[in-house]
Amino acid sequence: MFDLKGYLNDQRRIIDAALQDYIRQLSISERMRQPVAYAVSAGGKRVRPILCMAACAAVGREQTHALPAACALEMIHTYSLIHDDLPALDNDALRRGQPTCHIQFNEATAILAGDALLTMAFEVLSESGVCAPEQEAMVWLKVLRIISQAAGCRGMIEGQARDLAYEGMKLNRHDLEDMHRLKTGALIGAAVHVGGLLGLGTAQQTERLLVYAANIGLAFQVVDDVLNVKGDPAILGKAVGTDQSRQKNTYPALLGLVESECYAGDLIDRALHALDIFDTKADPLRAIARYIIHRNH
Amino acid sequence: MFDLKGYLNDQRRIIDAALQDYIRQLSISERMRQPVAYAVSAGGKRVRPILCMAACAAVGREQTHALPAACALEMIHTYSLIHDDLPALDNDALRRGQPTCHIQFNEATAILAGDALLTMAFEVLSESGVCAPEQEAMVWLKVLRIISQAAGCRGMIEGQARDLAYEGMKLNRHDLEDMHRLKTGALIGAAVHVGGLLGLGTAQQTERLLVYAANIGLAFQVVDDVLNVKGDPAILGKAVGTDQSRQKNTYPALLGLVESECYAGDLIDRALHALDIFDTKADPLRAIARYIIHRNH
Repeated sequence: MFDLKGYLNDQRRIIDAALQDYIRQLSISERMRQPVAYAVSAGGKRVRPILCMAACAAVGREQTHALPAACALEMIHTYSLIHDDLPALDNDALRRGQPTCHIQFNEATAILAGDALLTMAFEVLSESGVCAPEQEAMVWLKVLRIISQAAGCRGMIEGQARDLAYEGMKLNRHDLEDMHRLKTGALIGAAVHVGGLLGLGTAQQTERLLVYAANIGLAFQVVDDVLNVKGDPAILGKAVGTDQSRQKNTYPALLGLVESECYAGDLIDRALHALDIFDTKADPLRAIARYIIHRNH
Repeated sequence: MFDLKGYLNDQRRIIDAALQDYIRQLSISERMRQPVAYAVSAGGKRVRPILCMAACAAVGREQTHALPAACALEMIHTYSLIHDDLPALDNDALRRGQPTCHIQFNEATAILAGDALLTMAFEVLSESGVCAPEQEAMVWLKVLRIISQAAGCRGMIEGQARDLAYEGMKLNRHDLEDMHRLKTGALIGAAVHVGGLLGLGTAQQTERLLVYAANIGLAFQVVDDVLNVKGDPAILGKAVGTDQSRQKNTYPALLGLVESECYAGDLIDRALHALDIFDTKADPLRAIARYIIHRNH
């Protein structure tokens, strides 16, 4: 039986240490280092970097080859949270129980810290590429392309723009799914994709990893919506029922609760099926997929 | 006699067309395309892309090899203007006589459009690298590293953070110079540097180009400050004397007007001297340096 909890803890420790090293190395003033470090160490689940390294290991290579890319993905995720929380966007004062960056510092600092983290992600990726063996230069350029596309207007930013535009509108399932695929799915897909590339996986392996990523990305969102309806606030660490009161577009609102739970189950089955061609080195990816459906927070 | 005016007009046409192509190709919704196109086509001087292509030509290669990087630099410059103009930062409602992005659209859109342009720069660079001949992959990774570092916490972002922090403070020459070197000098330096790299220039050529860039970058700022004191508002297209009334840290305030003009002249001499080893293919770079000191707007 694979010990997922121990695995996730170990992985988080590795990623957190690497992220802190990157921030320490930066020749920036305390003025910028503080908000950047604050936002990065706000205790995220590290979903994207963990998936990235797990994909690298699944295709058979030491996961450390994917560590710089894993960190870059978390920097991009963190920047997106900082900017999304700003007063002009979601106007959130708290994230995971802590003051958001613009509350803890100020708005100008939060904007610049987000910009800094996004830029830093590309510094880390290009630096890793320059320092890698020459024959891997093209792999790193592909990694840069995949991540920049997923973070940009064909991915996360377009998803965020749609989310803003859809406020107060009633969505159909197609538009809701497209929005999630862009807003969160693209970067999760990129994480698994570049993990497979940096693991020097075959084309077939990469293709299967992408199917896996698309399905767990969506499942994660469906389960999130379900937990907002029937979760335990004490375990979740946040209020429930908030989506309904804000009239947010969610899967339970669209499909009903039971249908939503079935749908999440289907997505996880598809994700697991895509991993059929892999051996036990993909066990972490399998365990993560199963965890998504059984989690209660 | 080199026809600088004709040269700059031609170059701007090439760059504007390429920028518009990139924006058209993007698979983004109108919602994001509009603010991005608005900001990019607000009629900048295209200083960075022109320098990038001129450096490529100076070392002897067709300037089109540098065109994607030139466009990426302008995207980064444009993003920095959008974010700097935001209410939380400089709170500017007008830029070059036009409403700034957050005034024309709204603040959320301006934040996202800036994020989109920064990300798009790295999409363009990595895409160009992936499509270039395999033996140039390492050159493109270096280009990505140089540009991301210049845009990030060792460059533009740190410069902007210092500029904010220095508000209302009286600076010494060293701190003022450092701030400008970071805020504007780093990206101008990167433009010339990557132009030389993509032109496959020698190490000696690149070194000289960097000296050239450092000197014209600073000279440009000094002349800007001087024009704010003694320029003709009708020719400048903006008010003069504003720096003094805002108690901004400027060269004339620090060194006096005459001394500032001498300093700018010295910097240009140094820039021209650095180009000694180049033949007539560096004439555009020479003409640009001379223009900086003689411009009246």
